[in-house]
Amino acid sequence: MTATSHSPRSIAILGSTGSIGTQVLDVVHRHPDRFRVACLSAHSDAPGLLRQARQERPSAVCLSDPSADPTPLQEGLAGTAIKVLHGPGGLLELAIRQDVDTVVLAVVGAAGLPVALRAAEAGKILALANKESLVAGGALLMATARRSGAEVIPIDSEHSAILQCLRGERREEIRRILLTASGGPFRTTPLADLEGVTPEAALDHPTWSMGPRITIDSATMMNKSLEVIEACELFAVDPDDVTVVIHPQSIIHSMVEFHDGSTIAQLGAPDMRVPIQYALSYPNRLESPPGSYDPAGGPSLTFFEPDLERYPALSLGFAAARERGTLPAVLNAADEVAVAGFLDGHIGFQEIVKTVEKVMEAHRVVPEPDLGAILEADRWARDEAHRLCRR
Amino acid sequence: MTATSHSPRSIAILGSTGSIGTQVLDVVHRHPDRFRVACLSAHSDAPGLLRQARQERPSAVCLSDPSADPTPLQEGLAGTAIKVLHGPGGLLELAIRQDVDTVVLAVVGAAGLPVALRAAEAGKILALANKESLVAGGALLMATARRSGAEVIPIDSEHSAILQCLRGERREEIRRILLTASGGPFRTTPLADLEGVTPEAALDHPTWSMGPRITIDSATMMNKSLEVIEACELFAVDPDDVTVVIHPQSIIHSMVEFHDGSTIAQLGAPDMRVPIQYALSYPNRLESPPGSYDPAGGPSLTFFEPDLERYPALSLGFAAARERGTLPAVLNAADEVAVAGFLDGHIGFQEIVKTVEKVMEAHRVVPEPDLGAILEADRWARDEAHRLCRR
Repeated sequence: MTATSHSPRSIAILGSTGSIGTQVLDVVHRHPDRFRVACLSAHSDAPGLLRQARQERPSAVCLSDPSADPTPLQEGLAGTAIKVLHGPGGLLELAIRQDVDTVVLAVVGAAGLPVALRAAEAGKILALANKESLVAGGALLMATARRSGAEVIPIDSEHSAILQCLRGERREEIRRILLTASGGPFRTTPLADLEGVTPEAALDHPTWSMGPRITIDSATMMNKSLEVIEACELFAVDPDDVTVVIHPQSIIHSMVEFHDGSTIAQLGAPDMRVPIQYALSYPNRLESPPGSYDPAGGPSLTFFEPDLERYPALSLGFAAARERGTLPAVLNAADEVAVAGFLDGHIGFQEIVKTVEKVMEAHRVVPEPDLGAILEADRWARDEAHRLCRR
Repeated sequence: MTATSHSPRSIAILGSTGSIGTQVLDVVHRHPDRFRVACLSAHSDAPGLLRQARQERPSAVCLSDPSADPTPLQEGLAGTAIKVLHGPGGLLELAIRQDVDTVVLAVVGAAGLPVALRAAEAGKILALANKESLVAGGALLMATARRSGAEVIPIDSEHSAILQCLRGERREEIRRILLTASGGPFRTTPLADLEGVTPEAALDHPTWSMGPRITIDSATMMNKSLEVIEACELFAVDPDDVTVVIHPQSIIHSMVEFHDGSTIAQLGAPDMRVPIQYALSYPNRLESPPGSYDPAGGPSLTFFEPDLERYPALSLGFAAARERGTLPAVLNAADEVAVAGFLDGHIGFQEIVKTVEKVMEAHRVVPEPDLGAILEADRWARDEAHRLCRR
């Protein structure tokens, strides 16, 4: 069914040693006739990157952390044709290389935004797993992509679901986006007990296995706030036309209600390789091994309205999505620091969102910011959040 | 949002006084700028048709039952420009009138098939609620539509859901169609008690309010068998790629699983006006009053594999969908007679499906039948089923 005469897509996987990056490689290996690894990058995991480079034989690799030692990588790849780059500049170089069609951006943090912008300027297909690119720089990135004709495809399961629900549909016929959320591990914990939540309890997510920050963000639902902001930028919808629905089974990955009263949903097992593959094969779908979602063998699907007292992060997310400018960048940066503060034992679970709120309140929003203003707001918010966490 | 400069679609509603017909009129009245009633027909309800004709001012009407008296209609419309037709020939004339863009075929029974074929030959948009057109004559109808370029759009909520799930998708990427079924009122009745089921109990459907035959067919799930056959013809899929899933809440109207492991579903409140409007506005969606499906306020969604011992009708449906030829026409005709036999007290509830099975077994299938062979098989099956019900 997938046999065609297409030449394989040439992919740069930026952040290839992380959880998303290794799953991207899984997908690429499933379809060797479709995908070819052109470039790989890791932040500081030189041994991991070396191992991947020896197996994948890309044309170039980059160790993006300027303080990480690239020597083992350089020595390990000596005598091969693989170019070894180092530092953030190397990452920018990978994103625009001639031999790259598609940039999978799975790097963590604000460093992803300049790379996303560069890839979009160069007209690459941009498969996005980096939150900051859309949360902090969504307006700028989407405007850049519109100018160059670059496609921005989400890897996140919720936004992939929305993209799939919108396939063939007309944007002006959308009534609202229904963004589903698991509700995290404390969905039914008595409110009075949230104060005493430990990092260990918060790291135990009911349905998805993810990194520590996203797991804590899922417990506070700050993750869903970031996704609301991303959805508004990606799909050009108003925050008032986005509804968050708690759906503990994480089977329906999101829905779109149209103005005729009909709702389209995308469903599947919680396996990130499905949205990853969709981002790489878009607008087509490639065959995967069977064994996906079987409704008759699955759980009952339940839905609840989120309680804003339990999840105050949601109100902050909608506020940032409405205000735009530098406020989403500040929300994201302050949250990253506050989550680290919680995991390190400096602040309590409920103080994560309170810290973010305080930083947002103290921020002077810059409307329609350029890259410099966004990165400056990010830095300012981190400093401010650090200060609050150290008190 | 719906303001455009399109001229309104001109619609013939055949079967306008029935349950579907009156809901079609509801939808037309909601969008007077979009839809105009060109023709109306009723089987024998002359007063109902006269009332509708006076209100809608179509160019022509037809009382299709040759034994019904058209005099009150002719007298009631005397002095108007409305043409009054009578008998099956009149129905065929309405289906191909120059002033008709879209034929809504909501007549009941095998009489619908010649009308559907005529409308398809004439290249009309055919919005289908008549089961026989696809069950008995699906291969013939779809081939006719392909030749003329006519569009065949289902009105049934399940097939409308599948059409919506397939929007923008590629047919070769379908892994399977998941056709949902409420399971009817006897989903949890002990098997031993099914023998004693009365017509009154069988007519009490849990989620949809429908006519008597379709309600009984929903209790036996023969209705789902007919829908399996229809889905195979409409979407050109193999019966082995159709799965029936019991979903008692009737919120998900059907799903399509693609070969990448992703499933798309269409959801909504059980309101036939949503699929009716979609059929009329296809490929666009028109705005409807808000108040549609709200997951957070709705029930838990559950799914079960159908028990073939409880629902032997399903096996017959898949057998007919695999065999094709005249067998689906025979299944449908025998079932209509057997359901009437049950409602009249001649046979028990479980004998409905047994009767259909016996008639199917006795039938000599004609492969690739023309209209004559299909109508002959329909007549033969009715006679055969009558004989079995009278024993």
